[in-house]
Amino acid sequence: MVYTLGIDFGTLSGRAVLVDTRDGREVAAAVFDYPHGVIDDVLPATGRRLPPEWALQHPQDYLDVFTQTIPAALAQSGVDPAEVVGIAIDFTASSPMPAKADGTPLAFLDHLKGEPHAYVKLWKHHASQPQADKINAVARARGESWLKRYGGKYSSEWFFSKLLQILEEAPAVYAEIDTFIESADWVIWQLTGVRTRNKCTAGYKMLVQDGDYPSREYFGALHPDFADVIAQKVGREFVPLGANVGGLTDAWAAKLGLKPGIAVAVANVDAHVTAPAVKATQAGVMVMIMGTSTCHIMSGDKLQDVEGMCGVVDGGIVPELYGYEAGQSGVGDIFAWFVDNAVPPEYHEAAKAAGENLHSYLEKEAAKQKVGEHGLIALDWWNGNRSTLVDTELSGLIVGMTLATRAPEIYRALIEATAYGTREIIEAFEARGVEVKELVAAGGLPEKNALLRQIYADVTGRTLKLSGSAQAPALGAAMHAAVAAGVYPDIHAAAEKMGKLKDDVVSPIPENQKVYDALYAEYKTLYGYFGRGANDVMKRLKKIRNKARGE
Amino acid sequence: MVYTLGIDFGTLSGRAVLVDTRDGREVAAAVFDYPHGVIDDVLPATGRRLPPEWALQHPQDYLDVFTQTIPAALAQSGVDPAEVVGIAIDFTASSPMPAKADGTPLAFLDHLKGEPHAYVKLWKHHASQPQADKINAVARARGESWLKRYGGKYSSEWFFSKLLQILEEAPAVYAEIDTFIESADWVIWQLTGVRTRNKCTAGYKMLVQDGDYPSREYFGALHPDFADVIAQKVGREFVPLGANVGGLTDAWAAKLGLKPGIAVAVANVDAHVTAPAVKATQAGVMVMIMGTSTCHIMSGDKLQDVEGMCGVVDGGIVPELYGYEAGQSGVGDIFAWFVDNAVPPEYHEAAKAAGENLHSYLEKEAAKQKVGEHGLIALDWWNGNRSTLVDTELSGLIVGMTLATRAPEIYRALIEATAYGTREIIEAFEARGVEVKELVAAGGLPEKNALLRQIYADVTGRTLKLSGSAQAPALGAAMHAAVAAGVYPDIHAAAEKMGKLKDDVVSPIPENQKVYDALYAEYKTLYGYFGRGANDVMKRLKKIRNKARGE
Repeated sequence: MVYTLGIDFGTLSGRAVLVDTRDGREVAAAVFDYPHGVIDDVLPATGRRLPPEWALQHPQDYLDVFTQTIPAALAQSGVDPAEVVGIAIDFTASSPMPAKADGTPLAFLDHLKGEPHAYVKLWKHHASQPQADKINAVARARGESWLKRYGGKYSSEWFFSKLLQILEEAPAVYAEIDTFIESADWVIWQLTGVRTRNKCTAGYKMLVQDGDYPSREYFGALHPDFADVIAQKVGREFVPLGANVGGLTDAWAAKLGLKPGIAVAVANVDAHVTAPAVKATQAGVMVMIMGTSTCHIMSGDKLQDVEGMCGVVDGGIVPELYGYEAGQSGVGDIFAWFVDNAVPPEYHEAAKAAGENLHSYLEKEAAKQKVGEHGLIALDWWNGNRSTLVDTELSGLIVGMTLATRAPEIYRALIEATAYGTREIIEAFEARGVEVKELVAAGGLPEKNALLRQIYADVTGRTLKLSGSAQAPALGAAMHAAVAAGVYPDIHAAAEKMGKLKDDVVSPIPENQKVYDALYAEYKTLYGYFGRGANDVMKRLKKIRNKARGE
Repeated sequence: MVYTLGIDFGTLSGRAVLVDTRDGREVAAAVFDYPHGVIDDVLPATGRRLPPEWALQHPQDYLDVFTQTIPAALAQSGVDPAEVVGIAIDFTASSPMPAKADGTPLAFLDHLKGEPHAYVKLWKHHASQPQADKINAVARARGESWLKRYGGKYSSEWFFSKLLQILEEAPAVYAEIDTFIESADWVIWQLTGVRTRNKCTAGYKMLVQDGDYPSREYFGALHPDFADVIAQKVGREFVPLGANVGGLTDAWAAKLGLKPGIAVAVANVDAHVTAPAVKATQAGVMVMIMGTSTCHIMSGDKLQDVEGMCGVVDGGIVPELYGYEAGQSGVGDIFAWFVDNAVPPEYHEAAKAAGENLHSYLEKEAAKQKVGEHGLIALDWWNGNRSTLVDTELSGLIVGMTLATRAPEIYRALIEATAYGTREIIEAFEARGVEVKELVAAGGLPEKNALLRQIYADVTGRTLKLSGSAQAPALGAAMHAAVAAGVYPDIHAAAEKMGKLKDDVVSPIPENQKVYDALYAEYKTLYGYFGRGANDVMKRLKKIRNKARGE
């Protein structure tokens, strides 16, 4: 019997899953909510109020995840700890942390714990937008070739935007940094004593392309004191996914009740690690991790610049293929907005009477409609557009309302709009010759909503498979641990045995496809008109709004 | 003491108001609901089911209005019937009726009462659309000059569409018709024994321009048996508004408890008769009769072709001026749709807790927003667009939603959209040199909603006055009765003394106007894009919808 542990670090909690490496069976799981959660209001150490758009985390919470979940999962399972041969993690990204040379987070230092810039900047910290704007403007001005690998836009959420913000806003804190490191890599450093930078975040978030960072000249053009940022504050300790970083230290082994020296895999990212968990390690299988937003992850066998993708990274998902990432910034968020803000009492009451939640009730009502019967089209931009337009200033649109339009019709139109958004992304890939053969959906949304699954198959014209695990990221991490421990020679072999898909495969229904093709053509026209500069009304409305608010 | 009676024939009921001619004081009123209401489901005489889009009425209901309301109002008032010197009516239009030469409606004849085509075709009978299409196509093909007097489109709601439908669908019924007459004119015929056709409906609904109908050749091109329709089934008994048709017959005087021979004015239309009731008898004062839809009525001193107007008629509102009419097909209807279908329970509960209806509650919440703060624009086409596009196939649109958008913001955006629609109409008039100096609003909607009044003033940049009477059409009719009876020399003099405006005048607020100018520019761009052929997505969505429904 050989087991591995996968630890999934999310936005609000960490989860350990103990997995049987023979078949991917999830033997036990334990969850720990971060005591500090997301720090976006006041800094607990001082009560100091944070400005808008800030989102921090406390490194201690991550360490506590290990001690709180691993022993609990082991105890729950009854598995002999001697049979656990490896650990791997996945993490939100980019969530970097400033640290000293010995790995001590700046946030742990007494003289800095009152300083917001000393903490982890969580992925959704958006206060680095001015720095991201500069990173993009300078790259465009200099004609930096790497920019197109990121769909033409580096994000405020990413590593260098956040580091540059520290330099510009808190040079004294910047001076104290020995190493700025993804929290994903930092927790692995803690477990092993070895500092690494996984090739996934290095590629997607840290601008590592073709083996290295942008030039010293480029960084110097951002800020004179940023020229030597790589040598002074970062580093090149790149390690491919699935590699064994080193053995678990004696100290951590004792704390966790595990054998010292067992394999610890290099860190990984929550979305990307899901691919092997759903057997999607081959080129052309697109994994959609669907929740409040959707992340599209797919391997391809050639390198192409795809319009508005989040990034393409050599070995970004599995070692020998190019890993592509794209996304939609509002999916479940939009449905939740609708259910919370635009559904009249009669449906709330009917759902209650039927003993269902309102989403399920509306889904069933919407499923009674024929394709196109509601006469509606929406643009799914309530939260902006991540791919293919990479534009946060866009907003939502619905067209086609009559006096006869009812809530379940709009609900269906919103689901369809997100499916059209996915089709746009697929077409952007295929326009560059990166084939998308089939879809695999993971996350709570497709799990719960059968209508959504069928709509995605019908709209995209592709078969849709469903993740077999509700804890796919942790399972994917445990698979990387199995590779690091040598249980499997590579992630493909691990995925073959440990990956899980539900038996049901959703196939497109030809008669629905035909109508959706016509509706998608309408979506595409509106997408271009409102998204590509023909009519920037959405941006102007936001400007007028901001001015009215005095922003 | 001199009194007149104004009788307002609405869609569901008739109302008599007894008015003091000295000052327009409404002394007494009585209402009678039509026993047959709107016949749009089954024909009561036979239980025969009517096809979609049919809407009929029973002539007996109109006669009953007189006998049920006039004696009641008189009794209620305590006024001596000898002091009542005139009667006038206003009516929905176009609501024509087939009758025999003696005035007997075909619907009263035993052998025809099971025949739907024998009944009054109410204004909202839309089953004559194929005939309207033919009327327009033939007019365009022949280059008929009168077409532009109707904004380029004759409606399915109007007189000849309905008469041609009878000829095409029920030639045997058509053969029985001696005269096809507006119900407005028919009730006056009943009271006086004199058959007339008022210049208002003759102009707006019956194609009478420059004193006569289109040519025999034109009618013949519609259908060979329609060539002599004017001579055979209609007639030229035109009478200007405010004229005395003849004395009240002895028989009716006895039935109503009035003096025989008192003045009976020629018929009038509910919207148009409102103008004098709010003192709007001069050129450039636009009256908006606002309810589920809005009708815009204005006199002008020159004849111009205005884009998408409903019609322009010499003496159509007051005898010596050109009467212009335009409209918006969805106004209060859209707000009601929103309140019924898109407001979540929390607002229903808050309104209830505040002891207010939901419209008032949302209005107050919406009034807290600064102009432009919601970041939204809507196109007010839930029910199509009457002016300036004259297109029933258009539909509603909202743009600008984010995850932070809340119901009172959308509610405000919808009110604004209808105000932008009115501004479009005003600009269409002014583009042809027909000046719109100020606005007067009548109807329940502006009466109840202070935010709406201010938005209309701010968006249009014009002062807005409010009707002083809640029964403005009946008051307007009573004023025409006073003119017919010789109490006043003309409708201007009657309006001066009997017309009523509220003291409050709403003036545009310059800082709001500035923001609304920017928002209106956005509306105008979307209006053109979706309304003038650049993107006919709304029409295609309706086609797809109809196909999905098997229509």
